[in-house]
Amino acid sequence: MESLLLSRRDLEFMLFEWLQVQSLAERERYADHSRETLSAALDTYEAIARDFFAPHNKKNDQHEPQFDGERVTVIPEVKAALRAFSEAGLMAARQDYELGGMQLPFAVERAGVAYAMAANLATSGFAFLTIANAELLLTYGTPEQVDRYVRPMMQGRFFGTMCLSEPQAGSSLGDIRTRAEPRPDGTYRLFGNKMWISGGEHEVSENIVHLVLAKIPNPDGSLPPGVQGISLFLVPRRLVQPDGSLGERNDVVLAGLNHKMGYRGLPNCLLNFGEGRHTPQGEPGALGYLVGEAGKGLACMFKMMNEARIAVGLSAAVLGYTGYLHALDYARNRPQGRLPGQKDPTQPQVPIVRHPDVKRMLLTQKAYAEGGLALALYSARLIDEQHSAPDAQARIDAERLLDLLTPVTKSWPSQWCLEANSLAIQVHGGYGYTREYNVEQFYRDNRLNPIHEGTHGIQALDLLGRKLRLHDGASLALLDARVRDTIARARAGGDAALAAHAQALEDIWGHLGETTTRLLAVPDADARLANAGPCLEAFGHVVMAWIWLEQGIAAAQGLASADDERSQHFYRGKLQACRYFFHWELPRVPGWLAVLDPVDLTCAEMQDEWF
Amino acid sequence: MESLLLSRRDLEFMLFEWLQVQSLAERERYADHSRETLSAALDTYEAIARDFFAPHNKKNDQHEPQFDGERVTVIPEVKAALRAFSEAGLMAARQDYELGGMQLPFAVERAGVAYAMAANLATSGFAFLTIANAELLLTYGTPEQVDRYVRPMMQGRFFGTMCLSEPQAGSSLGDIRTRAEPRPDGTYRLFGNKMWISGGEHEVSENIVHLVLAKIPNPDGSLPPGVQGISLFLVPRRLVQPDGSLGERNDVVLAGLNHKMGYRGLPNCLLNFGEGRHTPQGEPGALGYLVGEAGKGLACMFKMMNEARIAVGLSAAVLGYTGYLHALDYARNRPQGRLPGQKDPTQPQVPIVRHPDVKRMLLTQKAYAEGGLALALYSARLIDEQHSAPDAQARIDAERLLDLLTPVTKSWPSQWCLEANSLAIQVHGGYGYTREYNVEQFYRDNRLNPIHEGTHGIQALDLLGRKLRLHDGASLALLDARVRDTIARARAGGDAALAAHAQALEDIWGHLGETTTRLLAVPDADARLANAGPCLEAFGHVVMAWIWLEQGIAAAQGLASADDERSQHFYRGKLQACRYFFHWELPRVPGWLAVLDPVDLTCAEMQDEWF
Repeated sequence: MESLLLSRRDLEFMLFEWLQVQSLAERERYADHSRETLSAALDTYEAIARDFFAPHNKKNDQHEPQFDGERVTVIPEVKAALRAFSEAGLMAARQDYELGGMQLPFAVERAGVAYAMAANLATSGFAFLTIANAELLLTYGTPEQVDRYVRPMMQGRFFGTMCLSEPQAGSSLGDIRTRAEPRPDGTYRLFGNKMWISGGEHEVSENIVHLVLAKIPNPDGSLPPGVQGISLFLVPRRLVQPDGSLGERNDVVLAGLNHKMGYRGLPNCLLNFGEGRHTPQGEPGALGYLVGEAGKGLACMFKMMNEARIAVGLSAAVLGYTGYLHALDYARNRPQGRLPGQKDPTQPQVPIVRHPDVKRMLLTQKAYAEGGLALALYSARLIDEQHSAPDAQARIDAERLLDLLTPVTKSWPSQWCLEANSLAIQVHGGYGYTREYNVEQFYRDNRLNPIHEGTHGIQALDLLGRKLRLHDGASLALLDARVRDTIARARAGGDAALAAHAQALEDIWGHLGETTTRLLAVPDADARLANAGPCLEAFGHVVMAWIWLEQGIAAAQGLASADDERSQHFYRGKLQACRYFFHWELPRVPGWLAVLDPVDLTCAEMQDEWF
Repeated sequence: MESLLLSRRDLEFMLFEWLQVQSLAERERYADHSRETLSAALDTYEAIARDFFAPHNKKNDQHEPQFDGERVTVIPEVKAALRAFSEAGLMAARQDYELGGMQLPFAVERAGVAYAMAANLATSGFAFLTIANAELLLTYGTPEQVDRYVRPMMQGRFFGTMCLSEPQAGSSLGDIRTRAEPRPDGTYRLFGNKMWISGGEHEVSENIVHLVLAKIPNPDGSLPPGVQGISLFLVPRRLVQPDGSLGERNDVVLAGLNHKMGYRGLPNCLLNFGEGRHTPQGEPGALGYLVGEAGKGLACMFKMMNEARIAVGLSAAVLGYTGYLHALDYARNRPQGRLPGQKDPTQPQVPIVRHPDVKRMLLTQKAYAEGGLALALYSARLIDEQHSAPDAQARIDAERLLDLLTPVTKSWPSQWCLEANSLAIQVHGGYGYTREYNVEQFYRDNRLNPIHEGTHGIQALDLLGRKLRLHDGASLALLDARVRDTIARARAGGDAALAAHAQALEDIWGHLGETTTRLLAVPDADARLANAGPCLEAFGHVVMAWIWLEQGIAAAQGLASADDERSQHFYRGKLQACRYFFHWELPRVPGWLAVLDPVDLTCAEMQDEWF
């Protein structure tokens, strides 16, 4: 254990031993990279996270953003941290050299960002929203939009937001009411209210680039119903002149801040567009610019949304991870009680890490946190394939597999690494429940993750209602092939424990497959989707078993050639966590499958009046 | 739904239809009572909770106790609420008329206190500690101690604490170092530090009665090792003169307050005994009086501790309950989206209570919260039997069964009703994560419950290491008889659904019995106790299935004779929650049993260096 943020040893294992990220150097885009340069990049992230992000994590929580009716004030350490992050080139790290980037592989960039998230989730939020925002504009924006907005974002001068929800339209985006009125010059004027906008107003950056979903009215002035009528707009907080200098204030104003249980350092805003406080260029309405095609706004936004969902899963995993490292550190240093067979009260107390139930809580956290991080990095690695695989079919396959895994990558760590944080508190006993220690904040911060960027329930509907059948089942077939390949490799390695895990995975994969096949064949949509929740639970845990078997195979290979004791310990710990997942977690799956085939309608049939 | 605190309809169902509390009026102690008087008592509790406790719950959280180095200040509403509670006679409600009490059955008194807990957990904490403290002194104290300390507590003039933990001895009480030096006059002088003392210092009451575990030194000045040497002492904050008037300050001083994630309104203290700030009666040390026999302190304290454990379970259940009612209220009033079969975006949005996944989350909360409350009231009802059953064997049996159920009554609601609070947040979406709504506080408050009064891990060791074999297995045999009786009654009622649940319970009860029998026969204590955690999980969920079948039987009886629609809805909801528990929750049990027989040693074999 090198740090209480993340285990660097484990990150290197995941990236270089398991995901073989260094092999990307064979591709032209990454030709300048090697394991050494990639490790050096991780050093940079780690140092900035440690020196600039971690020190104000508690202060950020205790001094949340204040709104005086005019300005939103955050503690000055936030700006200093993000400046250090930008000046090290990390805002643009994955982008082209031409944009000031490092052309880092996505998987490595995400592993680096994970350090910032572990150190200070709230402050890292400004960065990851900006990075995702820029990515969207690079895909769908015009060259002029890239020059005027993306370049300053890459320098850390502008930050980004995503403005989707409205007070009456959270999960149901088709019901948004923000209007975008076209002007003869091709620009738009926006009027409406946006809710839950992270980083929606502050003075940390020179400007804020809002990406806003809105509807262009029909000729009769009505708004087109449903998601089809949604377009995407770029709405800067301050207008940007052709020469890049900042112009007047746009009519985007803060109506109020939400006061959250955790994640407090990142202002979460209710924004009014076009309420009349400002009249940019002498006209009413917030001046906005169409991004991509009219009516295709949701599809464009999902580019950012999918990246955000993976980032949410990643952040949940790393909060679980840092909580685990904190709990481990505490457990090694806290003497309490004696072991069952050694109750002599005249003997000194033992460190609690030696108590079986504490070991259980630590190993559970390790399995959840390392599993969650591995899944997030696996997904990031798929994005690298999607962008740069030499083979066109491989690029398509990576995208399709990622489509299927995204709801799991978002939801699994959000659920189980939150549970890891609860266990981290439990290991600390009463101390963990106090703000004098760090773990209670991780727990509060992490509780947002099952809610934002699509709730757990939305992810479940996405998986069962869409992703399992996506591309005529091609996404699921790709996963099936990978799972079977993993099972075969686990058996081929000659390790009896891994072979037994492979058998367990094959059995449960078959059981899951039969269940979902029959479930998908249920004709009535209400019944089919009624228990989407437990379907996601079961699917998620089986995917995680596969991810653990993958890690187990790589760890067994590492152990076979490890000649120093420290490495051997690392690999044995990895294999033990794999064993834990198969022996302790996989047996949960039949409990979820029990309500899927046939579909148990106990919940669906509950009447409102009976509550 | 009558209130967002608790459902009165449900409380009446549990107390009068299921637990038949009104039948206690046949016993001399309760001869003045009837269903009407008991309901009237609940009215009083509910009114005081609603009018005095609930209004400052959020303020209590936002303005936690402050220590200026001299005094601890809490918001004035706390004192006003506890005065109203005391003046209504509720501090003494279960005690003899002679003590100013109402001779309420324990089960009814707990149901009443539940209102105060639901309204404001922190403020209710002052009361429930005082009530439990008085109970202990009534059992083990001298008549003089009762007159001098219990009577003022019953009037709400003195409050009580329990002082067990020390900074180096939390779960491991045998390692406490507080010394009690005997004086020739039979009193003691205490020296030491006590940690995690709820209500340890404040100005809300005239005096504070600390019940303190300490060790009387051996003749050579050393402290006896282990729990055998522990005695119990009464240490008042201010001395009390023979005439009851308050004398000088005792040498118990606050060293500092802990700052908690939740439960913030109740000051949690590090107390120093005999540090020298005061010299009561001109001598050093905190003046204390032995309670019960020397060396029997832990046994005496467990009287209070067991009551506190049941109270913790109760408080966890009621936080789950009020969270559920808040979520239900929100779900009925929040329109969002459309149902799977009705996606026409031109139609208005539906209240989210109609979405299957929201129904699932609400029904889950209902099953957890009503189940947890039912278990806590069942335990309270056993205390009534223990105290007043006409038959001596019935009194012994009640005590033995309660011994076995106590770790479950403490831990099950602490785990699952916390999960209910998480679901209450989830139903609220982003709103639930903000402090503008109430549910995030319930979640933070409830997170303490798996920690204090014996952690979850301690409860698991208590169950597997002690309670399952207690009295040569007599406790378990009593539970076995009750479970089988319930199964027989469920079958006899002619309701097919209940008969199916009875079969499921019989099957899992058999499976659990075989597993625990083999587990208890494992000779190696380390291996036997290694997986105490999942044993508690499995046992707890099976006990809860039994409690739900009990409620189901009573509900089916109620439904058969219900002639108004509202009652029918109530009973149907109860039966649906019972069905939910059997269909959705009971299938979790084999997942826990999987690691018990044979004992899976994955966690136990994890080496510290491998983490």
